[in-house]
Amino acid sequence: MLNFNFYNPTHIVFGEGKVAELDQLVPKNARILILLGGKSAKENGTLDEVTQALGNRYSEQFSGIEPNPSYETLMKAVEQVKSNQLDFLLAVGGGSVIDGTKFVAAAVFAKTEPWNILLTVGSEVTQALPFGTVLTLPATGSEMNNGSVITRKETHDKLYFKSKQTFPQFSILDPTKSYSLPPRQLANGIADAYTHIMEQYLTYPTNALVQDRFAEGLLQTLIEIGPSLMENPRDYDLQSNLMWTATLALNGLIGAGVPHDWATHMIGHEITALHGLDHAQTLAIILPTMLDLRREEKREKLLQYADRVWNINTGTDAQRINMAINNTRNFFEQLGIKTRLSAYNIDSKDIQPLLDRLEAHGMVTLGEHDTVNLTMSRKVLEASL
Amino acid sequence: MLNFNFYNPTHIVFGEGKVAELDQLVPKNARILILLGGKSAKENGTLDEVTQALGNRYSEQFSGIEPNPSYETLMKAVEQVKSNQLDFLLAVGGGSVIDGTKFVAAAVFAKTEPWNILLTVGSEVTQALPFGTVLTLPATGSEMNNGSVITRKETHDKLYFKSKQTFPQFSILDPTKSYSLPPRQLANGIADAYTHIMEQYLTYPTNALVQDRFAEGLLQTLIEIGPSLMENPRDYDLQSNLMWTATLALNGLIGAGVPHDWATHMIGHEITALHGLDHAQTLAIILPTMLDLRREEKREKLLQYADRVWNINTGTDAQRINMAINNTRNFFEQLGIKTRLSAYNIDSKDIQPLLDRLEAHGMVTLGEHDTVNLTMSRKVLEASL
Repeated sequence: MLNFNFYNPTHIVFGEGKVAELDQLVPKNARILILLGGKSAKENGTLDEVTQALGNRYSEQFSGIEPNPSYETLMKAVEQVKSNQLDFLLAVGGGSVIDGTKFVAAAVFAKTEPWNILLTVGSEVTQALPFGTVLTLPATGSEMNNGSVITRKETHDKLYFKSKQTFPQFSILDPTKSYSLPPRQLANGIADAYTHIMEQYLTYPTNALVQDRFAEGLLQTLIEIGPSLMENPRDYDLQSNLMWTATLALNGLIGAGVPHDWATHMIGHEITALHGLDHAQTLAIILPTMLDLRREEKREKLLQYADRVWNINTGTDAQRINMAINNTRNFFEQLGIKTRLSAYNIDSKDIQPLLDRLEAHGMVTLGEHDTVNLTMSRKVLEASL
Repeated sequence: MLNFNFYNPTHIVFGEGKVAELDQLVPKNARILILLGGKSAKENGTLDEVTQALGNRYSEQFSGIEPNPSYETLMKAVEQVKSNQLDFLLAVGGGSVIDGTKFVAAAVFAKTEPWNILLTVGSEVTQALPFGTVLTLPATGSEMNNGSVITRKETHDKLYFKSKQTFPQFSILDPTKSYSLPPRQLANGIADAYTHIMEQYLTYPTNALVQDRFAEGLLQTLIEIGPSLMENPRDYDLQSNLMWTATLALNGLIGAGVPHDWATHMIGHEITALHGLDHAQTLAIILPTMLDLRREEKREKLLQYADRVWNINTGTDAQRINMAINNTRNFFEQLGIKTRLSAYNIDSKDIQPLLDRLEAHGMVTLGEHDTVNLTMSRKVLEASL
């Protein structure tokens, strides 16, 4: 097991009807900005439930945080907070709204150009507004971590930051809030959580027995519930297991004391930034080919994954690995997510611009062994066509 | 899945040599009381390492916190804190020292007789001194939760409290610190962690898929490492997996959203209070008979436990359950822990006094279904002879 720090002070409040507990969770005298994505929270009643729970507290709203939340949009929220002396943020939405809220919380106190928060990966954040979240879309895990990914539209940059100051104080996880998600978003959430787990699990063994078992348990749970949930999105048991799994997939726990990969994510970010694919679509495309092309360096963990997660116990090592990778791809396809770049009209001439972006962002030695250089990234992209 | 709250702000610092980080973790101007158990921390160099890391900070020591820490002893530490205006506590030891430190932290601010903290199960604790821990004995999980069990020698009472104020600020988990543990303490730690998991797992299904997988993963890990660790106590990989497993066994995570039992613990506490057995010995005695006698109400989970934890896939349901319970008993015996009351010179005439203590402490309807009344407790004790 590698040495590690684990610290996660976010208070999780889990269950149907728990939005009402905002009354205990938000300070009585808070001046609140409620941050929202599209219209769904307004249309499905969640926003009404939130404002009712907040009672007489002063609150304003900021709508329109887009998927892959943009710096340009969020800076308007920063302005609103400053102009109206707001002092508490409440994210109502999925990972994009929560990521955006983290940026706003930190940017309010920025002493220089707020984009520097991204350029310094959060290391200069010393203060942030307190904030909570009401999660409506299980996927990113942002509700129980301190990380955030922000896109700058102007330059097509999609960058990451984190800070000890940007953990949510609380997150309300009410599984009924995702009953009305469109199938595409639900499928994306499952694929996103799955890939988060794989990035922390599928590297090389470090005798971290507990972390391996936990990661495998989360993967098994997603495999068990994923297809059923696509058919029964209003099943409380299925939704609650997805919501808690997606949260635990990226709250620091399974990643403590083990090597991380994240090469799939980094290449995926560039595809989203240049071509606008959903984040999860990019992961479902890249992950299977990434595993396939790096099968030697990931050999031991791939065999463990085949055995423990997919119950593949027969055949040669190569056959087992093939089956496990095929199962992974089929799992995404079964959710309705296409796993080839060509299905999104991206072809071979689009690869060089993606590599140029990786290079521009310093993503030239990715993966747990730094073996994913631009040559390997090109191979992965070519094999993903 | 049941509704739940999960909140755990303890910062875990894990790895060999991490005691040195006390210098970053403890405030520079802290006036520290270092709380200790017997002589081992002094003899094996851990105390020297701690005082060196604390550098020029003012510190005093309080030694002699016993296994099953006593109110009588701890009140002397409270006096020392008050007399010398100390403002930070540092527990160096195992669960007893840490539990005792939690009591001291709260008792310093008690407005009435401090024993009331136990009688009110911590509900009246509104303030506590900040404290950290350096864990030397993986077992109780106290290093990453807010609970504490204290014994009053005078009356043979062994009671529990918890409070939002009594989470450690940090816990340093250095697996090499348990290299020199006596075999009995090492075995006790494994059995204690195992039973903590079982009390939260082996109840009835609530569709909490993740919690089940996590609990099973922790049990599998203990089964995998336990016997090897008894033979190789200086194996870093084995000790690190035990230390992290024991911490995760009782940090609130696997118990969030599921029913709990704890009947084994409550009966065990009375055995320790009246007869002085090690806590883990009482658990190893009671758990197998408790499972056996309540096999109907625990049927589904016992079958799941047999299948997933012990790979028992053949035979009738009753045979599978028998095998799983036998394996559990054998696991404890394999660690060197006797699992019969008679092995500790406790016989049938000792049962009534134990039942009287349970009754006096209001422990008359224990277990996840409140079915463990005094009649059932008698049956369990009789079957454990």
